[in-house]
Amino acid sequence: MMNADILEKPYVVGIDIGGQTTKMGIVDMRGQVLSQTVIRTDTHADVEPYVDDVAEALEKIIKESGTEGKIRGIGIGAPNANYYTGNIENAVNLSWGGNKTIPFAELLSAKLGGLKVVLTNDANAAAVGEMTYGAARGMKNFIMITLGTGVGSGIVINGEVVYGHDGFAGELGHTTAVRNNGRTCNCGKTGCLETYCSATGVARTAREWLTLSDEPSILRSLDNISSKDVYEAAKEGDKMALKIFEFTGRMLGMSFADFIAFSAPEAIVLFGGLARAKEYLYQPILDAMNANVLPLWKGKVKIVFSQLKESDAAILGASALAWEL
Amino acid sequence: MMNADILEKPYVVGIDIGGQTTKMGIVDMRGQVLSQTVIRTDTHADVEPYVDDVAEALEKIIKESGTEGKIRGIGIGAPNANYYTGNIENAVNLSWGGNKTIPFAELLSAKLGGLKVVLTNDANAAAVGEMTYGAARGMKNFIMITLGTGVGSGIVINGEVVYGHDGFAGELGHTTAVRNNGRTCNCGKTGCLETYCSATGVARTAREWLTLSDEPSILRSLDNISSKDVYEAAKEGDKMALKIFEFTGRMLGMSFADFIAFSAPEAIVLFGGLARAKEYLYQPILDAMNANVLPLWKGKVKIVFSQLKESDAAILGASALAWEL
Repeated sequence: MMNADILEKPYVVGIDIGGQTTKMGIVDMRGQVLSQTVIRTDTHADVEPYVDDVAEALEKIIKESGTEGKIRGIGIGAPNANYYTGNIENAVNLSWGGNKTIPFAELLSAKLGGLKVVLTNDANAAAVGEMTYGAARGMKNFIMITLGTGVGSGIVINGEVVYGHDGFAGELGHTTAVRNNGRTCNCGKTGCLETYCSATGVARTAREWLTLSDEPSILRSLDNISSKDVYEAAKEGDKMALKIFEFTGRMLGMSFADFIAFSAPEAIVLFGGLARAKEYLYQPILDAMNANVLPLWKGKVKIVFSQLKESDAAILGASALAWEL
Repeated sequence: MMNADILEKPYVVGIDIGGQTTKMGIVDMRGQVLSQTVIRTDTHADVEPYVDDVAEALEKIIKESGTEGKIRGIGIGAPNANYYTGNIENAVNLSWGGNKTIPFAELLSAKLGGLKVVLTNDANAAAVGEMTYGAARGMKNFIMITLGTGVGSGIVINGEVVYGHDGFAGELGHTTAVRNNGRTCNCGKTGCLETYCSATGVARTAREWLTLSDEPSILRSLDNISSKDVYEAAKEGDKMALKIFEFTGRMLGMSFADFIAFSAPEAIVLFGGLARAKEYLYQPILDAMNANVLPLWKGKVKIVFSQLKESDAAILGASALAWEL
């Protein structure tokens, strides 16, 4: 990484495209975010005016931070992003993205005088971020699991993110955790890991269990239960909330055991809103994982929680991609 | 591959170490086996005399084939083989291998005047063999599944076999196919894919189903049912035998769907004794796989059967490793 080119252009841009907002920032080689800004994603029905807004906002923070002419490239984390082509394909969760293939990298690069742009999905970006600046520094083989609204994943083998034949590898949230009579998933399948172990999945478990038993719980008094409510209840010692996290951790651990059989990683790194509940998730994950791996891996694979500052993490992850340009 | 060194040393040796026998052969660049031989594995209680026998048998076929001084290296497929270290570790199925770590590559190389030796497990060797000489030629991303006594796997990403952090990646036969009340596996876990979809698993399904129903079947008249018996019965139109293969294929297909979510391969390549039943396995595998993958992969991942001549395949697979030396 330490070549002349980097010394001349020692900054990268990270852009995290979410359904509601788009965060972007200028990042230096040590992972410091020099300047950042946010625009709305969902106010645009078409991609062209959206790209105009992104370019405008970017130029502003580039100017502010005095990094004009010193930007090495732009890394983007976005849903349904294809690393190989630079396209965003059928991104139903983006107001301007459904049912089409958008040459996003090309569009943005054209607006920014030909700056190089690379994109991938947010979990892959997070994996590169952890490897570059975070908990996975020095690791060549690990699996990043993002526990947010859904369950995302980024798989690193021999120091490289796995993109697969088509650019879309690493959808571990849609591996089957429950084969028969599993929960319906947004993707159209049933029993996906994400229906149990995302923030949404935790809330779903709470609603399900409240109906199935009459066990007392703080959660009964709430109208629209979120995973945060379950976390708060667990902190107050609510037994059902604690059992929900234990169940969630166990489901994760059982799936992790299968992931280990695939790529024999050094660690599984957890990130995302739900990963904040680590005091309740860690032990059940570890126990279920070690109970379900081959003897040769028992007690050997680490469960690690992200070390990136949460407010910067999405930008850092995306920006890290640009170092590899 | 076409450099001067290869032209000077245009042959490789492939060795397939099994529990009972060890096959070895001299292979040219086109995948022709020039000369081959077999020795017993299980008559040796210690590794040193076994290595002596391997070296002696090898020197004989090298002389016979006139390839002295033209051998580029030796590739070995063996159980519990660690690619990184060249060791065979705790190989309980080898008479000389249990409960120890044997520096096998080093031992054999020393006996053969320092010829380079590389080893990996048999499924990884098979994957390299298919990529070099067989059904996966030209593919950069595929998963090899070997359906024999057990279920083995070799995963290729970006044209390279995945060895993982410790050298033992790719144990997909021990991913969990049935989470609750699954069959006991030799590995100590329950519900492993291998307990359902290996040759042994198929025979087990037959015995289980014969007990659970009184449906008529040719299989009832047999004493010690093997997967070959089930295959023969299926060929005669036996309904239960046909249903057993449909079940086996469906179990494979459901697991394959999860494997695809991991590495988004171009194809899954099937090899091994049970793969001979392809006329009964292909459609159920494909249907179950496509019913359980994310929409973006439906109908896109190929199921391919090995094209290697079965008598040569083990040697070819192992030998292919040596081209990469």
